[in-house]
Amino acid sequence: MRSGKAAPKSPLQGYRGKKVLVTGGLGFLGSNLAHRLAALGADVRLLDCLLPLHGGNRHNLEGIEKRVEWIQADIRDRAVVEAAVKDRDILFNIAAQTSHTDSMRNPRLDADINIHGQLNLLEAARLRRPDLRLVYCSTRAVYGSPGRGKVLESGPTQPLDVYSADKLAGENYHRIYSSVFDLNATILRVANGYGPRAQMRQPSFGILNWFIRLAIDNAPIKIFGDGRQVRDYLYVDDIVDAFLMAGLRSDLRGETYNVASGKGVPLIEIVRKILRIAGKGTILHVPWPETNKRIDAGDFVADNRKIRRDAGWRATTALEDGLKSTIDFYEKNRRHYWG
Amino acid sequence: MRSGKAAPKSPLQGYRGKKVLVTGGLGFLGSNLAHRLAALGADVRLLDCLLPLHGGNRHNLEGIEKRVEWIQADIRDRAVVEAAVKDRDILFNIAAQTSHTDSMRNPRLDADINIHGQLNLLEAARLRRPDLRLVYCSTRAVYGSPGRGKVLESGPTQPLDVYSADKLAGENYHRIYSSVFDLNATILRVANGYGPRAQMRQPSFGILNWFIRLAIDNAPIKIFGDGRQVRDYLYVDDIVDAFLMAGLRSDLRGETYNVASGKGVPLIEIVRKILRIAGKGTILHVPWPETNKRIDAGDFVADNRKIRRDAGWRATTALEDGLKSTIDFYEKNRRHYWG
Repeated sequence: MRSGKAAPKSPLQGYRGKKVLVTGGLGFLGSNLAHRLAALGADVRLLDCLLPLHGGNRHNLEGIEKRVEWIQADIRDRAVVEAAVKDRDILFNIAAQTSHTDSMRNPRLDADINIHGQLNLLEAARLRRPDLRLVYCSTRAVYGSPGRGKVLESGPTQPLDVYSADKLAGENYHRIYSSVFDLNATILRVANGYGPRAQMRQPSFGILNWFIRLAIDNAPIKIFGDGRQVRDYLYVDDIVDAFLMAGLRSDLRGETYNVASGKGVPLIEIVRKILRIAGKGTILHVPWPETNKRIDAGDFVADNRKIRRDAGWRATTALEDGLKSTIDFYEKNRRHYWG
Repeated sequence: MRSGKAAPKSPLQGYRGKKVLVTGGLGFLGSNLAHRLAALGADVRLLDCLLPLHGGNRHNLEGIEKRVEWIQADIRDRAVVEAAVKDRDILFNIAAQTSHTDSMRNPRLDADINIHGQLNLLEAARLRRPDLRLVYCSTRAVYGSPGRGKVLESGPTQPLDVYSADKLAGENYHRIYSSVFDLNATILRVANGYGPRAQMRQPSFGILNWFIRLAIDNAPIKIFGDGRQVRDYLYVDDIVDAFLMAGLRSDLRGETYNVASGKGVPLIEIVRKILRIAGKGTILHVPWPETNKRIDAGDFVADNRKIRRDAGWRATTALEDGLKSTIDFYEKNRRHYWG
């Protein structure tokens, strides 16, 4: 019944029978994690409210509908959160408002979800399940515009939008609850992810996935400026690996890790690869719109030595392979993700 | 009518007729600022909801009741905030839940006030008064436990409790609104303040003021451990000066400043000075309680060169003089502050 990924000797065998909660479980990262957890034989509960225009998508559960429990509810709902947490061993805390631009249009909604939602989860753990192992999904966006050089976890944080400021507060809450109340939380700062099961209706949920959609639609891909800005891209399976490895460790309490390839790739190069693999699409160079310019982080490459050393994690998917899997997935499943 | 502090040549003469809003205007820092603004001839509006057990105190307005407008309302009230902001030139944004320990007992209240309240003020400015000059009151607590050496504004932030995490989010919001929406906000990170008009009913509102109360009451002053932990203490008049100087400057947009003496003084030394000036009180050494130990920041001294250079600010009150004025004030006004 289990997939080939759960090889007998893997430390991830520790997930067999483990009671796991994934918030944002029908979203991009949450649902990819849910598929792996189901394959590993975990007892999987997902919490997702399917907010319109956010990342959740029923189709993301295709193939595991019968093997996971899904509570359609919101992390803003305190009673639901307490009930969902109280019998779990591990919480993968992924639910969030994740759009940078939406957080500037509706900052109060961002704070309701990314501040109060996080306090609901942490208070539920403190009061109902203090032995819970927590893995909090944060973002490289907390660094802001770090400039050149690989960014270390100990470097300064300077969020450029309300979403990133609130994610940083969420990190701090997890660290504080770990030190003051003895919870056991680890923070993962995820680089630019791409892959299957993403929100593909709007560009604000990950630029690479959006470009893949445009290529599949044979539409022009707009590049702001010269497209030389460098980012650190990571295939979703590699991100899922980092969460799975962290979830079984109890010795990473209060620690923060970059989850990143450690390699900087210019946007324009990736777009050319996408066009080549998709066999269609075109590039259109346009000037930077003012608002995007102001909240764009510029170049970003993360130093990933800390998670490699402490958790033994490695990114194993080559960019070409990741792009090919992603394009194949959306070519087959397009109707479930857009248009 | 005007106090001697508003000398004819002072740049603070620029406050004459200026329309100013002070949130938390009946609290410790807010009310001391209100007295100075009234003396400078400003058009002063105060917003304060007098939350029970927080910093607001009607007696703090004694002598200026007729010269200032007071709206008894809460920054959590969006409509009130918009109305209070829309005709103002300068906002001194001081209202907050300020207790470290209360923020761990009731983190949701802290987030309601220090997150949503701040978004209310910034959204009100953006929509109703984009030319408003904003000065945001933050705290040295955003640094956490920086260890030895004078702390620079560019150093890492690592808040140790929910209050400090939320104040850091408030800082980030002010910086982000300045860059994305062209608001003009400056962030002041205030060291350990002491002086007249503080909340004196509980120790959680400033340890030095609390020790002064104990000395006046001739009660034993409990020192955790050896009392050698070093802090950076600042008399409230010097803090008020920093706010006044920053308020008239339009060239400090998005900048963050330490407001600090730049001198580290061991707690035990200050307590001995208090006992000597008050002429009463005793010292009692006790072991560290577990919870206090976990959220205590250890030694702290700030580097104040940036605000000295950019705004010409200096701390001018000697510690002995500040303590003497403070003790005199509470000896005379004790019944309005405790007991």
